[in-house]
Amino acid sequence: MAYEFYYWPWIQGRGEVVRLALEYVGADYVDIGRGSEEDRQGVAAIRAFLESDAAQPQPYAPPFLKAGELVIAHAANILMYLGDHHALAPSDEAGRLYAHQLQLTVTDFVKEIHDTHHPIANALYFEDQIDEAKQKSVHFLEIRAPKYLGYFERVIAGNSEGSDYAIGSAPTHVDLSIFQLIAGLRYAFPKAMARIEPDFPLASRLHDTVAALPRIAEYLASDRRIPFNEKGVFRRYPELDP
Amino acid sequence: MAYEFYYWPWIQGRGEVVRLALEYVGADYVDIGRGSEEDRQGVAAIRAFLESDAAQPQPYAPPFLKAGELVIAHAANILMYLGDHHALAPSDEAGRLYAHQLQLTVTDFVKEIHDTHHPIANALYFEDQIDEAKQKSVHFLEIRAPKYLGYFERVIAGNSEGSDYAIGSAPTHVDLSIFQLIAGLRYAFPKAMARIEPDFPLASRLHDTVAALPRIAEYLASDRRIPFNEKGVFRRYPELDP
Repeated sequence: MAYEFYYWPWIQGRGEVVRLALEYVGADYVDIGRGSEEDRQGVAAIRAFLESDAAQPQPYAPPFLKAGELVIAHAANILMYLGDHHALAPSDEAGRLYAHQLQLTVTDFVKEIHDTHHPIANALYFEDQIDEAKQKSVHFLEIRAPKYLGYFERVIAGNSEGSDYAIGSAPTHVDLSIFQLIAGLRYAFPKAMARIEPDFPLASRLHDTVAALPRIAEYLASDRRIPFNEKGVFRRYPELDP
Repeated sequence: MAYEFYYWPWIQGRGEVVRLALEYVGADYVDIGRGSEEDRQGVAAIRAFLESDAAQPQPYAPPFLKAGELVIAHAANILMYLGDHHALAPSDEAGRLYAHQLQLTVTDFVKEIHDTHHPIANALYFEDQIDEAKQKSVHFLEIRAPKYLGYFERVIAGNSEGSDYAIGSAPTHVDLSIFQLIAGLRYAFPKAMARIEPDFPLASRLHDTVAALPRIAEYLASDRRIPFNEKGVFRRYPELDP
């Protein structure tokens, strides 16, 4: 039985870390939002699902994953589930909680990245909050991004297995997400990342190691990987990367 | 063996949902940040812990809970752990994931509430971003807060047990957090909440039901409950609640 993944078809967004996990484990899945309305897929199917009645109230928002009867929302929660069912995280309690904790730090970082271009309101266009976005991006690039990247650098350095990864000797969902963070920051802030990324060589190497994993490399080269663009979390606005 | 809870002693902040859970289950715990330096507690002990070496790299930030050898960070992750160990969440996989999903929606809401007073940067004072905070608060109170509260209202209405709670017939960590959201929003935005809270009668009733639970009522009346103030997530700034 195939997983059904529900997320907006035009962006990587908050859903991309889930797509990376599904691809890495070789899961049988349907990316519902990217399907056609003829097949009862597409954006209309996402909206219809969110408005449908069920024994359990539907999620607040995409991304969510349908796994048989289960409906699992929030990227970090989905990754915890996939971690348990596809050996994409440690299986002992301490390791599971630690992997999830790191993923929740990723979630916080992603929200701050998103808010660099939308500091006032999602409901406003970027152009309507550009001055505030410039201010926020200065602080983000000087303080917040180095603080988060420095934390993940310490996590990788502190991996008792001494591998390229954040935890243990094999990739977990945390590594896939760190890959996505580095790739996205390089896209959105190429000038700033050229300056600051050399301070985080282990995170940088983790990015390259993950990108070279065969299933990830194949995915990134496929049309299933939606290109970065100015509708998602990571947006290249030159005004914000002077 | 007592839990050790690590969070800033001067605020409810992101840690309060954990304090509420520890109090509700009657856990044996030490609120390290509120202890004295003579007992090797207090803020210095939190900072020392974060900078200490361990087999597993330390958390990015408080709150975190030490449970024997386990160190668990992020409020939602701690609540998942307490949910499992103190029957503060459903025990089946679907129920656990659903409770955690709702708690992660709480986390997102809390971040948006925090950002009403700090839309540009945490490193700046409120007074240095007051114009932006006013703009953000207008959108927050008109669009975001009603959207989140409306979601939790639907969750409570959709509870197949028909209780006052979000899930099942007994309180879970989700209910304690919805209580905290309502209490905090009433404190921070008394005028706006007087207008909008009547649209969410089930969330409002849930607040009152949780406040009357004997252990919660005792906690709220004790000096263990830090009063709301202008250093935490929920701040009463009249400029933001015109």
